[in-house]
Amino acid sequence: MALRGAVTRLLSNSQKCAAVTVSRAQGTAATAAKAKVAFNWRDALNLEGQLTEEEIMIRDSFRDYCQEKLMPRILMANRHEHFHREIVSEMGELGVLGPTIKGYGCAGTSYVAYGLIAREVERVDSGYRSVMSVQSSLVMHPINAYGTEAQKEKYLPRLARGEILGCFGLTEPNHGSDPGSMETKAKYNPSSGTFTISGAKTWITNSPVADIAVVWAKCEDGKVRGFILERGMKGLATPKIEGKFSLRASATGMILMDEVEVPQENLLPNVSGLAGPFGCLNNARYGIAWGALGAAEFCFHAARQYTLDRIQFGVPLARNQLMQKKMADMLTEITLGLQSCLTLGRLIDQKKAAPDMISMLKRNSCGKALDIARQARDMLGGNGIADEYHIIRHVMNLEAVNTYEGTHDIHALILGRAITGLQSFTVGK
Amino acid sequence: MALRGAVTRLLSNSQKCAAVTVSRAQGTAATAAKAKVAFNWRDALNLEGQLTEEEIMIRDSFRDYCQEKLMPRILMANRHEHFHREIVSEMGELGVLGPTIKGYGCAGTSYVAYGLIAREVERVDSGYRSVMSVQSSLVMHPINAYGTEAQKEKYLPRLARGEILGCFGLTEPNHGSDPGSMETKAKYNPSSGTFTISGAKTWITNSPVADIAVVWAKCEDGKVRGFILERGMKGLATPKIEGKFSLRASATGMILMDEVEVPQENLLPNVSGLAGPFGCLNNARYGIAWGALGAAEFCFHAARQYTLDRIQFGVPLARNQLMQKKMADMLTEITLGLQSCLTLGRLIDQKKAAPDMISMLKRNSCGKALDIARQARDMLGGNGIADEYHIIRHVMNLEAVNTYEGTHDIHALILGRAITGLQSFTVGK
Amino acid sequence: MALRGAVTRLLSNSQKCAAVTVSRAQGTAATAAKAKVAFNWRDALNLEGQLTEEEIMIRDSFRDYCQEKLMPRILMANRHEHFHREIVSEMGELGVLGPTIKGYGCAGTSYVAYGLIAREVERVDSGYRSVMSVQSSLVMHPINAYGTEAQKEKYLPRLARGEILGCFGLTEPNHGSDPGSMETKAKYNPSSGTFTISGAKTWITNSPVADIAVVWAKCEDGKVRGFILERGMKGLATPKIEGKFSLRASATGMILMDEVEVPQENLLPNVSGLAGPFGCLNNARYGIAWGALGAAEFCFHAARQYTLDRIQFGVPLARNQLMQKKMADMLTEITLGLQSCLTLGRLIDQKKAAPDMISMLKRNSCGKALDIARQARDMLGGNGIADEYHIIRHVMNLEAVNTYEGTHDIHALILGRAITGLQSFTVGK
Amino acid sequence: MALRGAVTRLLSNSQKCAAVTVSRAQGTAATAAKAKVAFNWRDALNLEGQLTEEEIMIRDSFRDYCQEKLMPRILMANRHEHFHREIVSEMGELGVLGPTIKGYGCAGTSYVAYGLIAREVERVDSGYRSVMSVQSSLVMHPINAYGTEAQKEKYLPRLARGEILGCFGLTEPNHGSDPGSMETKAKYNPSSGTFTISGAKTWITNSPVADIAVVWAKCEDGKVRGFILERGMKGLATPKIEGKFSLRASATGMILMDEVEVPQENLLPNVSGLAGPFGCLNNARYGIAWGALGAAEFCFHAARQYTLDRIQFGVPLARNQLMQKKMADMLTEITLGLQSCLTLGRLIDQKKAAPDMISMLKRNSCGKALDIARQARDMLGGNGIADEYHIIRHVMNLEAVNTYEGTHDIHALILGRAITGLQSFTVGK
Repeated sequence: MALRGAVTRLLSNSQKCAAVTVSRAQGTAATAAKAKVAFNWRDALNLEGQLTEEEIMIRDSFRDYCQEKLMPRILMANRHEHFHREIVSEMGELGVLGPTIKGYGCAGTSYVAYGLIAREVERVDSGYRSVMSVQSSLVMHPINAYGTEAQKEKYLPRLARGEILGCFGLTEPNHGSDPGSMETKAKYNPSSGTFTISGAKTWITNSPVADIAVVWAKCEDGKVRGFILERGMKGLATPKIEGKFSLRASATGMILMDEVEVPQENLLPNVSGLAGPFGCLNNARYGIAWGALGAAEFCFHAARQYTLDRIQFGVPLARNQLMQKKMADMLTEITLGLQSCLTLGRLIDQKKAAPDMISMLKRNSCGKALDIARQARDMLGGNGIADEYHIIRHVMNLEAVNTYEGTHDIHALILGRAITGLQSFTVGK
Repeated sequence: MALRGAVTRLLSNSQKCAAVTVSRAQGTAATAAKAKVAFNWRDALNLEGQLTEEEIMIRDSFRDYCQEKLMPRILMANRHEHFHREIVSEMGELGVLGPTIKGYGCAGTSYVAYGLIAREVERVDSGYRSVMSVQSSLVMHPINAYGTEAQKEKYLPRLARGEILGCFGLTEPNHGSDPGSMETKAKYNPSSGTFTISGAKTWITNSPVADIAVVWAKCEDGKVRGFILERGMKGLATPKIEGKFSLRASATGMILMDEVEVPQENLLPNVSGLAGPFGCLNNARYGIAWGALGAAEFCFHAARQYTLDRIQFGVPLARNQLMQKKMADMLTEITLGLQSCLTLGRLIDQKKAAPDMISMLKRNSCGKALDIARQARDMLGGNGIADEYHIIRHVMNLEAVNTYEGTHDIHALILGRAITGLQSFTVGK
Repeated sequence: MALRGAVTRLLSNSQKCAAVTVSRAQGTAATAAKAKVAFNWRDALNLEGQLTEEEIMIRDSFRDYCQEKLMPRILMANRHEHFHREIVSEMGELGVLGPTIKGYGCAGTSYVAYGLIAREVERVDSGYRSVMSVQSSLVMHPINAYGTEAQKEKYLPRLARGEILGCFGLTEPNHGSDPGSMETKAKYNPSSGTFTISGAKTWITNSPVADIAVVWAKCEDGKVRGFILERGMKGLATPKIEGKFSLRASATGMILMDEVEVPQENLLPNVSGLAGPFGCLNNARYGIAWGALGAAEFCFHAARQYTLDRIQFGVPLARNQLMQKKMADMLTEITLGLQSCLTLGRLIDQKKAAPDMISMLKRNSCGKALDIARQARDMLGGNGIADEYHIIRHVMNLEAVNTYEGTHDIHALILGRAITGLQSFTVGK
Repeated sequence: MALRGAVTRLLSNSQKCAAVTVSRAQGTAATAAKAKVAFNWRDALNLEGQLTEEEIMIRDSFRDYCQEKLMPRILMANRHEHFHREIVSEMGELGVLGPTIKGYGCAGTSYVAYGLIAREVERVDSGYRSVMSVQSSLVMHPINAYGTEAQKEKYLPRLARGEILGCFGLTEPNHGSDPGSMETKAKYNPSSGTFTISGAKTWITNSPVADIAVVWAKCEDGKVRGFILERGMKGLATPKIEGKFSLRASATGMILMDEVEVPQENLLPNVSGLAGPFGCLNNARYGIAWGALGAAEFCFHAARQYTLDRIQFGVPLARNQLMQKKMADMLTEITLGLQSCLTLGRLIDQKKAAPDMISMLKRNSCGKALDIARQARDMLGGNGIADEYHIIRHVMNLEAVNTYEGTHDIHALILGRAITGLQSFTVGK
């Protein structure tokens, strides 16, 4: 046997096993060709390779905008609770408002592209993503899905351009997780062809500055329906909520409706019941699932860099096992979360997605992102509470993100029902 | 406007908003065609739709075998610490040993198919999967990757058929996470053309019953190399480890080598250094990443069924929020974990995978599976400690699975190094 | 000023601040007397200093017995599921059965002493502690608290000596957390002055080997009452439960009662309703709260020693941050848990304890102990699954301990009710 | 037998077991006297009963002040980052500054009383407690422990009255967890009898408004010593840190020292090395251990009340199992934490405490309090991000509290060293 001969021959000189290496090198030059794949901690399972060229292009150009135009503004916007209205117009110009809608001046992208957009903007700030989500998923989507052709033509192009800003009124002071008990009423007036709407909505992103509001109200038949309200209608007020320590770069307020008279043309006719708002929420939650992980990625990357730069006891903090373990956990959860968001996006694009899938990923992304942000803040020690390091802002933001559009616990019960067939929301008296 | 006309006309009768529903139904019959996608809690992100027909076929036929032939045997095998050697032959007949190897009587499947096989067998028992992993990844793989043509021809077909069983000797009594310090020595004897190997290996799956062993030893040049040892060689003993409360259905033992003389034909010539055993471990870890989630799925499904069947306080246990939350967490982690394993499998098949990716998913799957099994056991209350409900067995098994082939912490440090470029294994004195 | 003079004078020589040290040494000799208190990781908040001499004496002598007589037997007892009946007699001789009972041959110790005893025995094995808990809290306690003088005289001295062994029948196959729905019935026969009892109890510690059983049954008035059954009564069977992977050193079985005729002398007359069994369980849970922490202490100490002894990458495992963090958590939880158990024991001795306090500490101790045992097992790597290292046995045992006498979740709901005034056990249909 | 007679007689009427109840009632009137102890969820292990009358009195009167005078101010103080300097004077009037010091106008209370004070003030705000901790433990304590008689007489009475406010300079921009590497230098000038101090300290509570600063600097002999600096010294600047999202009601800044000339009378002569600042930190950490739990208690109580008041799906949120479990965990951790703080306080009063004990409880209290605050915030849903509900403020505050005076991880390593005898702070290069 050739090998044996080679071994014997070579070892007669050196008497060392080392010789075998030479033999190996000769015998297996072919296998050396197997190039080693480098591990990319920014993309641990090669998400990039699973995107289309168009998706990458959309993502990259929007990322540039976010990093160059939003990132420099966010520190002071958050510190002073200032909402930059012009950002909406800038986003409109970039075509990222209502991006999945076909026609009406919208981009008609894939849902995966929509997710990538949400991720990039939330990498900067969840407040900015919230503004965008509301406009796209909670205002443009219901008009597109449930509205008349006239409504679409009237509102969608202007919303897409960011010329007008919308908000979405579902949650009420006494009804958060339980919108079925809403108290806002809509009464039809056959004589005037209008609806009279009274009630109060709260925790409404954009409301203090919005031009229109998609408001959900209970009609006389007990069914919930959606209406498009416009700023300036009599009886409509949108006071800002003060003292908010989350999403400070976006405006949040109430929608107070004291017998607001709304023309029946402003009714969204093609849906009734909670399916309407829930459809919107599903749409928005999908974007949140991506977005929250963008925030988590920022925190992970920032904490990594901080601990590489910061020297304690003579070595970078990043050299410590306790730090590395936190980062290993972050990397894992971000990677798994993003991969599943991508899969979900593809399913939506193929019309194979179920709402419970979205609940699962909204919940997972938000809960994990919040935890990652907290860990990252901790890794920065004392500096972690200063807004100039940005992470404390994400920690505060993600508290709201984990709560709105279905709390972590509510989505657990939604999933629990999907798993068992038994609802456990209500508990008897 | 048609809508307005319809509304006015209909409301003249009923004066109720309800009428709008009718209008909607008329106006949007088209949208009603949008079939609702059902949520499948057994496959929450449609993994099935991402597999090839061949993969599904391999998976299904092997699942049948596992459920019909392995499941009935496992209770007593585990209770009495009995390893059924004939299972290896049965697996050989089914073609699931070394399935990714091309030629030599092996199936040549995709790595995704290999993962699906591991998941099905570990759904029954991690011990059985361990036997299979060792044979496929730790014995057949190194012979195929590092062996001579003669070695491949001599061993692979018989190993593939399950005629002979192999084991893998790397870990030593004093060196687990730190194999570089191994004490087992191989000394070349030029006169006889043999190596004399002395040392001890421990925690070796299959060793007490294996026919051959791939053993790693340090040669005189300080480099680690692999050797194929055969049962019956003088000085070789493989005592069983008693009192094991994990993986009881597989045999675990030591490999004691007291000046075992091994012909140089049994040296694996095409690798030296830790790259050899680490390459094998990576291969095995990939299978574990899938397998552990199979065990987790069993526990989830069993706990779900138990809580649906068990009535307390007048309702199924599954009706309780505390139970549903546990199941929501299980579903989420299993779904995300499997989706990422699939992505990784595809990357391996495309030769785009890096070892750190495997570390990430081995660690994630094992840690999450162990946690799921513990939660599931808890959901069964007192019955959860009885082996006939199977979950306590998975709890015990997964303790080993989470530890072997790189502990949860060691993989954290591997990832930490990949993220930061700084190793933190060693800590100075 | 003296100081200034000293500084100037001394510095004229050395010009170094170091001189100030001398000045300090001269000026503050008094403060040097402040002896530094050493930190004792085995008793981090000086529990020892809070015990009475008698309590320490009882504890120490029993600890000696446990370490010298029980520890050597436990490995094989657990491996082979063998219950050593003679241990009960040995405990009887030591006076640790029913130790808080005054008279009837019992020791009449404080509840703190009882807790210390439970901790010592569970440091060895939860199965042994279970045997003791059942005898003391679930058999002797109800006879003492609810029995007639005749019953006390007949049974207590023999139980205290360990001459006879008892068991406690409450849980039924279909009713664990919900004993109020029990199906076992007792029917009074006025003619014979006996009760006829039919039903099945399961997961009964000691039942296969017990001489007597305190069984709870629903009487014709719908109220639950306790009865003392004796082995040999017609219709009584106590089959062993096989395949148990927890508490294997104690025997567990069922109590099957097929029209067992029990003389009315064997009714425990002084209690009715669930207050009876719940009073017993509270008593036992108090012991468990201490005992589980004893098991946790064993695991902590064993993992500490293992990681000090085991060298990897050139240093003891204990030198690693990841290991030290686990141990810091263990130390903290054990210390806090024990301190609170001591406080609770004192409150019981002063008759100031409420049952919800016991729920709180039973739940806390068990949950934390289970988590500590799991972490400790992990710290032992592969060796952690071998029973000779003992920790895997504690992991398995604590699964049952965390479940029985009120699961972790059920105690959460008990506490939730105590906090809110609202019960959430029942959830409506 | 009397019992038997009674049973027979009574059952002849009703034939029902119920009769036995009557028998019981007759036979055991005595035991009925055993009054049931009520469970107090505000004090689950009767901490109150373990305090002295004086301690209760001090606590109650200070609690009144905190609730009546501080609570109404905190909302706006935190929202607008405003520090109310007059609070220090108010506290001085109440005698809670440096309360454990004997003489010099200080109260001379027990350490337990000091802990109770910290708990009450942090129940309102961690920023206020920080101000108090710094004044008491980090300024008054070192002057009292390491200062000359003249220094004590000069500063302590005015600090005790809150006439002047102090701060403590140890942490530097590049040295947080590793103060031994400090860069601030003190150079002795024999001619003038002064020290020239240069360097920068950061994250210094109170610095922008403090009248004096206890600053630690490295002397020419390489040893760290403490100096009392006074506002107005040339070269001393104390800029405020902007954009802080934690402890906003207290002022935080830097201490910049550019060749500040300090008379040698201002050297603290009776300590050198890190023992000086570490002694102060231990003192402060003890107060933090109590204080953080006060914040946790506020969050627990507020979340409890909120969920009792908030109706969703027809019942109070508090009726849900998921809510009750969170509250059960909160109650348990708060109770155990407080009990251990009490034990530690008693040990300090008896001079039996070791610094590692304080590390353990500082770490435990802060980590648990942060977790409780986060859970409580979550329980408030959307309202949880509004400062008027106060919990989000505690969440933000506790991030700093968990970090300063030794991070959670650093204290883990301190404990790890105490447990193993091996330090793991340094890791080699």
